[in-house]
Amino acid sequence: MQSVIPVNLPRHAYDITIAPGSVDQLGVWMQGTTKRPLKLGSRVLVISNPAVFEHYGRRVIASLEQAGFTVATCLLPDGEHYKTLETLTKIYDAALANRLERSSTFVALGGGVIGDMTGFAAATWLRGVNVVQVPTSLLAMVDAAIGGKTGVNHPNGKNLIGAFHQPRLVLIDPHVLQTLPVREFRAAIAEVIKYGVIWDADLFTQLEAAPQLDQLSHLSAELLQAMLTHSCRAKAHVVSKDEKEAGLRAILNYGHTIGHAVESLTGYQVVNHGEAVAIGMVAAAEIAVALQLWRPADAQRQLTLLQNAQLPTHLPSGINLDAILSSLQSDKKVEAGQVRFVLPTQIGAAIVTDQVPTTIIRQVLQQMQTV
Amino acid sequence: MQSVIPVNLPRHAYDITIAPGSVDQLGVWMQGTTKRPLKLGSRVLVISNPAVFEHYGRRVIASLEQAGFTVATCLLPDGEHYKTLETLTKIYDAALANRLERSSTFVALGGGVIGDMTGFAAATWLRGVNVVQVPTSLLAMVDAAIGGKTGVNHPNGKNLIGAFHQPRLVLIDPHVLQTLPVREFRAAIAEVIKYGVIWDADLFTQLEAAPQLDQLSHLSAELLQAMLTHSCRAKAHVVSKDEKEAGLRAILNYGHTIGHAVESLTGYQVVNHGEAVAIGMVAAAEIAVALQLWRPADAQRQLTLLQNAQLPTHLPSGINLDAILSSLQSDKKVEAGQVRFVLPTQIGAAIVTDQVPTTIIRQVLQQMQTV
Repeated sequence: MQSVIPVNLPRHAYDITIAPGSVDQLGVWMQGTTKRPLKLGSRVLVISNPAVFEHYGRRVIASLEQAGFTVATCLLPDGEHYKTLETLTKIYDAALANRLERSSTFVALGGGVIGDMTGFAAATWLRGVNVVQVPTSLLAMVDAAIGGKTGVNHPNGKNLIGAFHQPRLVLIDPHVLQTLPVREFRAAIAEVIKYGVIWDADLFTQLEAAPQLDQLSHLSAELLQAMLTHSCRAKAHVVSKDEKEAGLRAILNYGHTIGHAVESLTGYQVVNHGEAVAIGMVAAAEIAVALQLWRPADAQRQLTLLQNAQLPTHLPSGINLDAILSSLQSDKKVEAGQVRFVLPTQIGAAIVTDQVPTTIIRQVLQQMQTV
Repeated sequence: MQSVIPVNLPRHAYDITIAPGSVDQLGVWMQGTTKRPLKLGSRVLVISNPAVFEHYGRRVIASLEQAGFTVATCLLPDGEHYKTLETLTKIYDAALANRLERSSTFVALGGGVIGDMTGFAAATWLRGVNVVQVPTSLLAMVDAAIGGKTGVNHPNGKNLIGAFHQPRLVLIDPHVLQTLPVREFRAAIAEVIKYGVIWDADLFTQLEAAPQLDQLSHLSAELLQAMLTHSCRAKAHVVSKDEKEAGLRAILNYGHTIGHAVESLTGYQVVNHGEAVAIGMVAAAEIAVALQLWRPADAQRQLTLLQNAQLPTHLPSGINLDAILSSLQSDKKVEAGQVRFVLPTQIGAAIVTDQVPTTIIRQVLQQMQTV
């Protein structure tokens, strides 16, 4: 059971491969085929964090060395607050110490933070070296590892410093999810449901057929493979039609407008990103219903899925409505003072609009307050 | 008297405009024409250093504001040793404080260091904003500002961290060279002579017609304009045929192989970059003659030009030949252990080769030692 999803970018085409057990085959996958060798050089720098590396580091390195690569390793501290220019210098130092060349390759072995930082380091080392993404969290698999967005945080804002840099290969091994904490798994399911709502009605109905979505052990191997394949394909389609985020790619921000505000106002402590997106999806759905863009029954189907994944569907208690409304104004995605929302119009389709009256936003948020 | 040189990159076409007095017209140039508006947004961040800003800052800002731009300023300390990730954070901080958006523009007002850092900041702020280069040194005008190479230094190596990011406009005002120190002017003449040797025989003979090349006041306005135009055109041609430095662009490194070694071995203190390139050009010329690739008479013509500009044509005293040879091996441009040289074959043409016997390099360097 193996899926290969081609990402057809004009000058940066690459494959996303989803294959159980593939961490032990990374070296072979990185060679490419005789017909289409990947030409990833001879030197590889594997970038990871201690927790992930303990589980998979040895296996990945063994596989790379067996395929003839010379491998060096760089371990970074774990966590979003280390996603900084300062941590980045550790990658640069390791690249220099191990004489990585323009033809060499950085391998990101980890979740979104490792992927974003490794990608940005690869974008900027010697003005650009190859990067291979080996995401180990569900969120990174279905989102961060695909699309070429890379970067680090500025002390006053997330992802403000970065570059577009497409990977040469994304290799996804569903088996590694077995070591993923349940809460992180669940949070990523929010993004999977998102793809169902905005892009892929088939994925949505497959998710509906599952009795529970709240932890890996409740999913069949088939559903997991299908979820990964559909999600990656959705993101790949959107990204390849809009590499530099000029238009269509904006629909991927479904749930993120309110979601970001909730995350930021609770200091990134109360809800994680996926949970915030779940809350944002409920809000966007209700706004779409209020504007008569979406059928109430479909919004209800989305709510049921989120609940089946045990994701939050109300605002965290104590959060101030005015604070949310004012936070929306300072978001990166605001152009000329208008807040942009992604709103579903049916299961599998969404639009982007900056024409949502504040009164409606406020009314929806009021209904979503925790009693 | 005004020249416009189009740089025809597939997805990043832009113009280099050379116009005396144009610093006072920056705002107008940045608007573009009715037929081809440049769309550089409404907010501009001017990045400069205190010395340059004192001369031209007020005029540039006045011109921008008159054209309707909202202008903020960020001054960076002057000098190559400030070209670091740390200094870069000052640009990011200013961009955040002044709410620069994806549609906004960074303006680099200064020499190569300001241009490289501003370009890299623009490449990475919000994953890429516009940059306009207003070079104020002759070296930046004919070299650094054109071609989209941007970056900062790693503590252990120059320009190791960077990105390709093309400017939206390069605006060159020859008048600003009046405040350029003589030694810097002279150093840049080395690069101008370089373009004559590797690409533009016409430029070479124009330079030969000038009695002296050692300071601005010895040049007619016509020769200066021609020098700038021919040099920019040479670089633009090479760059547009090879945006990401896959092949042809390597000829721009004429004089740089030995040059870099000399610069680095004297701790960047004894000779500046242009002077080192002059020494490197003499070495490459002698190697080309020894390999019977180039006529001795043409090498002599190059030597005369360099001497007319009062540029050094011998190795600095006390430099060790073995140290140079071993330094060549550790250069960024080495692939698989072979040192690459750019060698002229006639006035206006050069080849790239990694087939130079070490005995010949040593012999040429011996002849170039200061007695």
